[in-house]
Amino acid sequence: MIITLEPDAPTAQLLDAIGQMVRQHEGIELRTYEFVGTTQKVTEIHLIGNTRSVPTEPFEALPGVRHVVRVSVRYRLISRQPGVETAVGFTYNDVHFDESSVHLFAGLCAVDTREHAGEMMRALARNGLHTTRMGVYKPRTSPYDFQGLGTPCLPWLFELAGENGIKVMAIEVCDARHIEEVLTALEQAGAPTGVMLQIGARNAQNYELLKQAGQQRTLPVLFKRGMGLTIEESLNACEYIASEGNTNIVYCLRGVKSHLSEPHRNLVDFAHVPVIRSLTRLPVCIDPSHSVGRLSRAPDGLLDIFHAVGQGVICGASMVLVEFHPHPLAARCDAHQALSLDLLPRLMAYVERVRRAYEEVREIAAS
Amino acid sequence: MIITLEPDAPTAQLLDAIGQMVRQHEGIELRTYEFVGTTQKVTEIHLIGNTRSVPTEPFEALPGVRHVVRVSVRYRLISRQPGVETAVGFTYNDVHFDESSVHLFAGLCAVDTREHAGEMMRALARNGLHTTRMGVYKPRTSPYDFQGLGTPCLPWLFELAGENGIKVMAIEVCDARHIEEVLTALEQAGAPTGVMLQIGARNAQNYELLKQAGQQRTLPVLFKRGMGLTIEESLNACEYIASEGNTNIVYCLRGVKSHLSEPHRNLVDFAHVPVIRSLTRLPVCIDPSHSVGRLSRAPDGLLDIFHAVGQGVICGASMVLVEFHPHPLAARCDAHQALSLDLLPRLMAYVERVRRAYEEVREIAAS
Amino acid sequence: MIITLEPDAPTAQLLDAIGQMVRQHEGIELRTYEFVGTTQKVTEIHLIGNTRSVPTEPFEALPGVRHVVRVSVRYRLISRQPGVETAVGFTYNDVHFDESSVHLFAGLCAVDTREHAGEMMRALARNGLHTTRMGVYKPRTSPYDFQGLGTPCLPWLFELAGENGIKVMAIEVCDARHIEEVLTALEQAGAPTGVMLQIGARNAQNYELLKQAGQQRTLPVLFKRGMGLTIEESLNACEYIASEGNTNIVYCLRGVKSHLSEPHRNLVDFAHVPVIRSLTRLPVCIDPSHSVGRLSRAPDGLLDIFHAVGQGVICGASMVLVEFHPHPLAARCDAHQALSLDLLPRLMAYVERVRRAYEEVREIAAS
Amino acid sequence: MIITLEPDAPTAQLLDAIGQMVRQHEGIELRTYEFVGTTQKVTEIHLIGNTRSVPTEPFEALPGVRHVVRVSVRYRLISRQPGVETAVGFTYNDVHFDESSVHLFAGLCAVDTREHAGEMMRALARNGLHTTRMGVYKPRTSPYDFQGLGTPCLPWLFELAGENGIKVMAIEVCDARHIEEVLTALEQAGAPTGVMLQIGARNAQNYELLKQAGQQRTLPVLFKRGMGLTIEESLNACEYIASEGNTNIVYCLRGVKSHLSEPHRNLVDFAHVPVIRSLTRLPVCIDPSHSVGRLSRAPDGLLDIFHAVGQGVICGASMVLVEFHPHPLAARCDAHQALSLDLLPRLMAYVERVRRAYEEVREIAAS
Repeated sequence: MIITLEPDAPTAQLLDAIGQMVRQHEGIELRTYEFVGTTQKVTEIHLIGNTRSVPTEPFEALPGVRHVVRVSVRYRLISRQPGVETAVGFTYNDVHFDESSVHLFAGLCAVDTREHAGEMMRALARNGLHTTRMGVYKPRTSPYDFQGLGTPCLPWLFELAGENGIKVMAIEVCDARHIEEVLTALEQAGAPTGVMLQIGARNAQNYELLKQAGQQRTLPVLFKRGMGLTIEESLNACEYIASEGNTNIVYCLRGVKSHLSEPHRNLVDFAHVPVIRSLTRLPVCIDPSHSVGRLSRAPDGLLDIFHAVGQGVICGASMVLVEFHPHPLAARCDAHQALSLDLLPRLMAYVERVRRAYEEVREIAAS
Repeated sequence: MIITLEPDAPTAQLLDAIGQMVRQHEGIELRTYEFVGTTQKVTEIHLIGNTRSVPTEPFEALPGVRHVVRVSVRYRLISRQPGVETAVGFTYNDVHFDESSVHLFAGLCAVDTREHAGEMMRALARNGLHTTRMGVYKPRTSPYDFQGLGTPCLPWLFELAGENGIKVMAIEVCDARHIEEVLTALEQAGAPTGVMLQIGARNAQNYELLKQAGQQRTLPVLFKRGMGLTIEESLNACEYIASEGNTNIVYCLRGVKSHLSEPHRNLVDFAHVPVIRSLTRLPVCIDPSHSVGRLSRAPDGLLDIFHAVGQGVICGASMVLVEFHPHPLAARCDAHQALSLDLLPRLMAYVERVRRAYEEVREIAAS
Repeated sequence: MIITLEPDAPTAQLLDAIGQMVRQHEGIELRTYEFVGTTQKVTEIHLIGNTRSVPTEPFEALPGVRHVVRVSVRYRLISRQPGVETAVGFTYNDVHFDESSVHLFAGLCAVDTREHAGEMMRALARNGLHTTRMGVYKPRTSPYDFQGLGTPCLPWLFELAGENGIKVMAIEVCDARHIEEVLTALEQAGAPTGVMLQIGARNAQNYELLKQAGQQRTLPVLFKRGMGLTIEESLNACEYIASEGNTNIVYCLRGVKSHLSEPHRNLVDFAHVPVIRSLTRLPVCIDPSHSVGRLSRAPDGLLDIFHAVGQGVICGASMVLVEFHPHPLAARCDAHQALSLDLLPRLMAYVERVRRAYEEVREIAAS
Repeated sequence: MIITLEPDAPTAQLLDAIGQMVRQHEGIELRTYEFVGTTQKVTEIHLIGNTRSVPTEPFEALPGVRHVVRVSVRYRLISRQPGVETAVGFTYNDVHFDESSVHLFAGLCAVDTREHAGEMMRALARNGLHTTRMGVYKPRTSPYDFQGLGTPCLPWLFELAGENGIKVMAIEVCDARHIEEVLTALEQAGAPTGVMLQIGARNAQNYELLKQAGQQRTLPVLFKRGMGLTIEESLNACEYIASEGNTNIVYCLRGVKSHLSEPHRNLVDFAHVPVIRSLTRLPVCIDPSHSVGRLSRAPDGLLDIFHAVGQGVICGASMVLVEFHPHPLAARCDAHQALSLDLLPRLMAYVERVRRAYEEVREIAAS
C-alpha cells in the first residue's frame, strides 16, 4: 500500500500516526520515500507486507494524506500507479531526464584510442550535444575478443569530456569494482562531467551488481532490458536498484532475441516504449544501434537505424543511444553498426522532426 | 537472371533472340513478366534454372535491353533488385496501392449483423474513407468459437458497400471455395465494390491456397506474415502467389509470437516495414490491432494501438488495418481490441500527421 | 459436461432422458460420441453450451450412467479427463495405434523414383516392418523447389506397398483435393494397404483442411504440431478434425522453432510426449528427423537422431517417423537428414531396447 | 592451433622449439595447458592469434608431438576436437565427474532451516548418496522475495554435510564475495566436504563472475546455460572460466525460455546433451526441476520430472540436479517443483535403470 502525502505535510508525524494504526496488523513494515522528479517532488509512505486486510479509509482520513493506493505490482518503487500523480524522472548534472524532451547519447561503442574519443567528443561539441556514450568495460561474447580499455582510459576520457562540455557520459559497468573505479576516477578528474552507470543487457539479472549500483546515490543508472527478459522480469530487476535507495533510473529498450529478427540483429521492441511509460515513472531510452545492428538503407534513403529511432521517438522515448565512430571500419567492436560522424547532424534533425510530430499527435489525443 | 527491357522494346523478338542464346545451356526456362506499378510499367524476361555459367554481357548488348541482374533471392517475382528500377505496387478499382500515400482499412474483425456492418460503413462514408476490412470467414483457434457468418452475408455486405462508396474491402479467405464464393457473390452483386483477398496469418504457409489466390487474376491479395515465420520464409510463401501469375500483392505485418510480447498480444514487428520495402516491390501494410491486441492507454493519452500505427507510418507503411466496432463490447471476436467509431476521425488525423512527418524526414535523407 | 455411459447402457433412452432434464436450461446441445479404442469402447453424451448452472448429480443418479465430468478444456473430444477411463487410440487396418507398443514409420521424405520407393519398401519387408511414410505432396518453402511427384505416383506406390506387405502408409496432404485423390487411388489400387493422412506442420492451423480430413472417416489422421504453436493451440486445431466426426487421430511432435535450437534444425520438444498423453486420448508420435535435421554423431557413436528417438520412446511415444533413403545423397528433399538403409535394423534394435527400459521404469512408478 | 603432446614428451623443450618456429609470424602467443581428466592426462600447447598462415606440418614432425589441429571454435579450452583424444572431466574430492556414471545431486532449492537441511542430508546418507545441491544465495526475480539465508548458514551446513558423508555440495554464487565467503567457510569448517560453485542461469553472461570463478582453482564450477542463450553463446561464456585457469567445469542444461514451453516452465533442452558432449570435454548435467517446473504425473504414473530425467540420461547426461524438500509445501522457493523425500529411492532406481539402457544402446552403435 502506498500513502502519498500532500507537499507540505509533516512526514515524521504522519509516519508516527500511521505506525500506530498498523500496529495491530502483523508483519507490516513502513518505509518513507521521497521522489524528486524534474517538475515535482512527492513523499510516499509504503506499507510493505501483507496489507490485504488493512483498510485504506483511516489513512485517507488523515490530514496531510493526498491519496492511498493498493499496489498490485511487485516493482513498487519504480511503478506508476494509475490515477496517481507521479514524479517522473530526475535531474542530474543540470540535465533533466524526464518526458519533456529527447536526449541523444551519441558516442563510441568501445573507446579504442584517445584520438578517436577526442574526435567523437569534438563532433558532439560542434553540434551542441552534451551527452554521450563511451564503452570502457566491454562484456564480449568471447574472452578472446577485445574487452575494452578499462579503468586506465578513464582519466583522459574525463579530461576530454571536460574540454568538450560533456555533462553526462553513459558508461557500462559489469562489476562492483567498475563502479568504484568510475567513482574514484570521476572524483580525481575534478571535471564538471557526470556519469550515468549503464547495466545490462547481459547483466540485467545480475542482481548483486544492480544492488551495488543502487547503494551508491551519486550516479544515475541506465538499466538495459536483457535480450531474453519479459517486461515483468526486467522491471523487477530494475526494482533491485531502487530498493537499495537509488531511484534515478532510466529504462532502456535495445531489442530482444528471436529467430524472427532477421535481417536485423534483434527484434526491435520499441512498441514497449508506451508500455514502460504506463507502468513506471522512469524515462525511457531506446538503443537502435544494438536493436537493428546493421547499416542498410531503405528505398526512401533512410538507414534502418534512423527508422528505428523514429519508431521510438514517435511513441515518446526521451533518450536515444546511438553508436558512432570517426572511422567506422576501424572500430574494434560492432563496426557494422557504427554511424560515421557526418550523419550526426542529420540524425539530430531527424530526431527533432519526429519529436515535433510526437508532440503534435499527443495533442490530438488530448483534444 | 532477370533481363529488364526498355519500355518500347519488342518483347516477342527479344524473347526469341534470348531463347536462341541460352539454348546451349541446359535446363534453363524463359518466362516473361509484365509488372504494372502505379507509376510505371516494366517488362522482364526471367531465366529460371542454373544460370551461374551464363554470362550477362551478351544480353546487355542486345538493343532494347535496359539491364540484366543475377537474382540471389528465391522470391524473384516480388523482389526488388538493388540498383534496378522497380514497378512498385498496382492500381485496383481506382485505388493506387504503392508508397505514395496511406490507406486506412478500418472495419469489423468479424461481421456479426447487417446492422453493425451498416453502421460501420456509414461511419466510413461519413469520414470520406473508401476502404475497409470485413471478416466473413473466421479461422478461430477453437472449432467451438464463432466461425463468421460465411458466404450468406456476402450479398448484403456488397450491397451495403455499394451504398457507402466502398471501393476495396479486404476479406480473409481460408479455402479455395471461399475464393470462388467471393468471386461469384461479387459478380452477382454488380456493385462497384472491389475485394482484396486476405490470406494468413494462420494460412501463411498454406501453399495450395496461396497458389489458388495466384491463379485468379481479378482480385489483389493481402498476404499476412505468419506469426512464427521469418521474413525469408514469408517472402517465399508470398512468392507462391506471384509464381502463379498474380503479382498484385500487399504484404502485411501483424506482430509475431514470442514470450517477450507481454503485455501486448504479439511483438510488434513494424521495424520490418523498411526491410520489406528494401527487399520487395510490394506495398507494406501494418495490422496494429492484432499486434497490440488491447486498448490500454499511455500516460500521454494515446492508445497503444495508435502508437503502433505511428511506428509503422513513420517508417513508410502505406496501408493500415484497424479493427473497429460500433459497439465493441458486443463484438463476437476480439472485442478487447476493437476501437469505437468515435475514434475514427481521431485515428485519421493521427495517421495524416505522422505521414506528413514521414514525408518530411524522407527529405532529410535525400538532402 | 461429459456423461459417460456403462458399456451396456441403452444409449437412445438415456439420451432422451437427459434431453428432458436439460430442457429448462437454455442453449444446451446434446451430442453422442462413441470412442472405440484398441482395448475398450466408450459411449459418451456431451452437453455443449454453458453448463455452469447445470448440476451433475441428477445425471449421476441415472441407471446406466458411469460418471459425469465437467470439461474445462475446449478440445473436449480428444481430451483425457483426469480420473475418467478413456478409450485410448484406435485400430486401423489391423494395426493398433495406442500406447501398448511402438510403430516405426521409416520411409522417404519425398518419393522421387519408383526404384527408390521399391528399394525402401523391400528393406522394410526384409526387416519385418509394415508401416512407412512416403512424401507425395511436398509443401516446400519455395515454389521453385521440388514439390513432390503428386497424384501420378500413387498407383505404383500402392502397388509396391501391396507387394511388400505395407499395412499403413503415412502420406501428407495439403489440400482437400489431395484427400480425394488419395481415397480414389487407394480404392482403385484394391491393395490391402492403408493410408494415414498426415497434416501439418505448415498446415497445422489450416482449419478447412483439418475439417475436410475429419469429414471423411475412412482414413486416420496424423496431426503434426505446427512449428510455432503452443500445445493449447495445437490441441484446439486437432479438435477440428474430431469435431467433424473422425477421432482416429495420432498427435505428432516434430520440434519447434527457436533461436536456441542450433545446431539442431529445431528445438526437440519430446518432453511434451507425457504432456500430450496426460491431456489427450491420442497416441503420440515423434518425428526426430525434422526435429534434429542433421546426421551428426555424438562421441558415444550414436547419431543425434537416435538420441532424439530415445528421448521420445523413454517417455512413452508409441509411433516414430524416421526419414530414410536408399541413396541419401541423391534425395531431392532434406538429404542431410536421411538415414541410409543399413541403419534400419540398428534403429529397430535401438527402439526396442529403449522401449523395454520404458516398460520397466513404468513399473517403478506403479510399485 | 592446438598441439597435443605425447604423455612423456618434454613440455618445456617443445615449448621452446615451437616458440622459435613461430617467431616469424607476428602476434602469436603460446600457452601451455594440462588437462587432467579422470582417465587420462593431456598436455597441449595453444597458438593463439591469427594462425591461418602457419603450417601444421613442421610441428607434426617434432618428436613428442602427437597431433596438431586447427581450432575453428572460439571456446578452445573446453572444446573437443573431432578425431583428437580428449581428457574428459576431472576428479574432485574423490568423485569422478566424467561420462562413466551418473551423479544425482538431490537437495534443497533454498536452505530454509537447519532442521530441513538436516532431514535432507540424512535422507541422502540413508540412500547412500554423497552429492547434493543446497541453495544459499538465491537470485530471485523480485528483491522482495526470500533471498536465501546467505553466508551465516554456511558453518552449520558444512557441519551437517560432514556428519552425513557429503563429498560434493553444489552451491550457487552470484558475486565474487560469495566465492570468497564459501572458500573461507569451507576452510574454517575443516570438514571433508567439497563445494562445486554453481553459476547461472541468470548470471550465465556475468563474465566478471565467471572470470573470478576461474581465477580460483580450488573448487570446480557448475555452469548453467542461460535461459535465452544459444549453445554457442553459452560455450563462449563457459570459456571465460577456463581462460582464467580453471577447467574443472560441468555444463548444465536447465531448459530454455519460449512461448512454446507450456504447461512446463521451460522448454526442456536435453536433446542438447549429445551436442554438448560432441562439442566439449565437459561432463553434462541436467536440471529437470527447473526445466519442467511442476509435479504433474503422466497416465503411466511417472512424474514429468522423472520423464525429463530419463530424456537426459538416455542421451548420456552424467549429472542430475533434482530439487527435494522434506516438507515441499513449506519450501520458501519453488515449492511447486520440489519432490518429497519418499521419492528419492524411486528416482535413484529410475536413473539406474535408464542409465543401464543407455549403456546397452551405446553398444548397438559400436557394433
